[in-house]
Amino acid sequence: MAAEIAEQPAAARRTLDHLLPERARLRELADGRRRVLLVARGSSDNAAIYGRYLLEVVAGVPAGLAAPSVATHYRARLDLSDTVVVSVSQSGSTTEIVETQEWARSCGAATVGVTNVAGSPLASSADVALVTQAGPELAVPATKTYLTQLVALGVLVDALSGSTLADDLHRVPDAVEGLLAADVAAASEALAGADRVVVSGRGLLLGTALETALKMEETCLRPVRGYSYADLRHGPISVVSDGLLAVLVGAAHGPLAEPMADLVGDLQGRGARVLGIGGTAAFAERCDLHLAGSDLPETVEPIASIVPAQVMIEQMALRMGLDPDNPRGLNKVTQTEFSERNN
Amino acid sequence: MAAEIAEQPAAARRTLDHLLPERARLRELADGRRRVLLVARGSSDNAAIYGRYLLEVVAGVPAGLAAPSVATHYRARLDLSDTVVVSVSQSGSTTEIVETQEWARSCGAATVGVTNVAGSPLASSADVALVTQAGPELAVPATKTYLTQLVALGVLVDALSGSTLADDLHRVPDAVEGLLAADVAAASEALAGADRVVVSGRGLLLGTALETALKMEETCLRPVRGYSYADLRHGPISVVSDGLLAVLVGAAHGPLAEPMADLVGDLQGRGARVLGIGGTAAFAERCDLHLAGSDLPETVEPIASIVPAQVMIEQMALRMGLDPDNPRGLNKVTQTEFSERNN
Repeated sequence: MAAEIAEQPAAARRTLDHLLPERARLRELADGRRRVLLVARGSSDNAAIYGRYLLEVVAGVPAGLAAPSVATHYRARLDLSDTVVVSVSQSGSTTEIVETQEWARSCGAATVGVTNVAGSPLASSADVALVTQAGPELAVPATKTYLTQLVALGVLVDALSGSTLADDLHRVPDAVEGLLAADVAAASEALAGADRVVVSGRGLLLGTALETALKMEETCLRPVRGYSYADLRHGPISVVSDGLLAVLVGAAHGPLAEPMADLVGDLQGRGARVLGIGGTAAFAERCDLHLAGSDLPETVEPIASIVPAQVMIEQMALRMGLDPDNPRGLNKVTQTEFSERNN
Repeated sequence: MAAEIAEQPAAARRTLDHLLPERARLRELADGRRRVLLVARGSSDNAAIYGRYLLEVVAGVPAGLAAPSVATHYRARLDLSDTVVVSVSQSGSTTEIVETQEWARSCGAATVGVTNVAGSPLASSADVALVTQAGPELAVPATKTYLTQLVALGVLVDALSGSTLADDLHRVPDAVEGLLAADVAAASEALAGADRVVVSGRGLLLGTALETALKMEETCLRPVRGYSYADLRHGPISVVSDGLLAVLVGAAHGPLAEPMADLVGDLQGRGARVLGIGGTAAFAERCDLHLAGSDLPETVEPIASIVPAQVMIEQMALRMGLDPDNPRGLNKVTQTEFSERNN
């Protein structure tokens, strides 16, 4: 896991170089279609959440997440002739995702497959395959495949928006490089010793918060709730009390930077300790513990901000005496159904 | 909370009688529009998740959940001229939801407001207001307002589908009545003493599982993860071990009834105890503890299946020495932003 985290600047560069030339084909495929539906599970689902916000905020394209069981179990017939369906799976072999892509095509959708494996079922059957260039990922917790999925979704949104997003994407590899040496000693020690942990973020950085929570669950075998900032305030905030460690992923720029700084004091007032990642200077100052993020625009910041979280979680697992590369009870290719267990 | 749980059969009947005559107006409003976008937070968001599956599975209408910050903070301009936006809020006064409804209209959407308060900002500004007839709800954790929201969404889907859903909706009040006397002693005792709890469901019953988890968090001040069955298998299943109590909400009918029964043995094999709600006979038999659900068709089963969970959680809170009517740290009308705290 540590080695693969360190490979991410190069993986991001290769992926950008490989995928930017696909923009013309993506524009052609999307021509005349009005919306995008994303299909994914697990870490790829957290990447899809970033893609959803980016599509709506930067490209002005209505976007949403598919419910795969509507395709695979209920076999609903929807008219998707106005839709581009983007399926995200690092292996390209998760049967549920491949089946949902086939269903989408049969409902009239144009299909884009985002995967790290050229020639995989997902890549082979998509109208356009965006093959990320992370190289083979051996550790079970996804790191470089997740980060390059975000890059691929950034390229897609640049293609559909005619914005200057590509310029910002080019700044990502250096920013990632600069975050690899994050000093995570205090943060990982606090997490390893914490009784209860929640993670929260919002908007473009919501996916980063959810991926931080999922990675901690997978790697450290500890239940960790990831919440949107807004959902946290609607009910679950009642569980915040003494002994809770709240990890907040902040934005350095954008309309949600300031509200996230307000949340710090509210959580502290309820007895929680707050560990911040990224965000504004005011946010960093209020947090009990803090890891620096990048200073990239909010639209591409999530691609870099996951890096200090990855480094921290890898160290947290080691402190807990766990093997971050091979967590208990998980396989590299996850299948959703029991009957697919040995696929 | 107990009194309001008991009022639900009457509340469901009143709501059905009040809303079924609105179906012609709903059909007219939706005419020529291709999809539905739901806007909600908290318990209302769990109701919206049921609405989303019901729209796609029964009416064949593509549906999704909005990300309110795209409207309220990023102020994205999306073309929603092909969309009906359904906003769900028991109070009808949550500023974020009201603002998102206004934004949707300015983007070209037709708007439907589902709320329990006639004359509320949400009801007043919607093209069609579906006002649920739960009566005043005094306990902070929503019960009868949540259940009647599901009824309202059922009426909407019946209007858009030309199906026989209304016949099944008419069976709901009696089914709810029959579930009020659930014997929850063993289940609430197990929950009150459990160290860690997760809740899982899938498809049409996913919203019920998430609402069960949220209600437990709000009422019993305990972090409880709600997962879709599929998401649980993609990573978080690594946290399942000895001492975990898994609450599974099963379907008695439909394509997901059997897969849920398979999950029981998998969780037990990892050391968890399983408390089942509803589901098939095979599912009930495998669970360590079980509460009966209804025998309604899967499409309306979620409206009844929340009832044994509500009864159980109310008893769980009492066993823990808590006041289920007034949990710590929550207000009846939740605002998402800090600046709205005193609205």
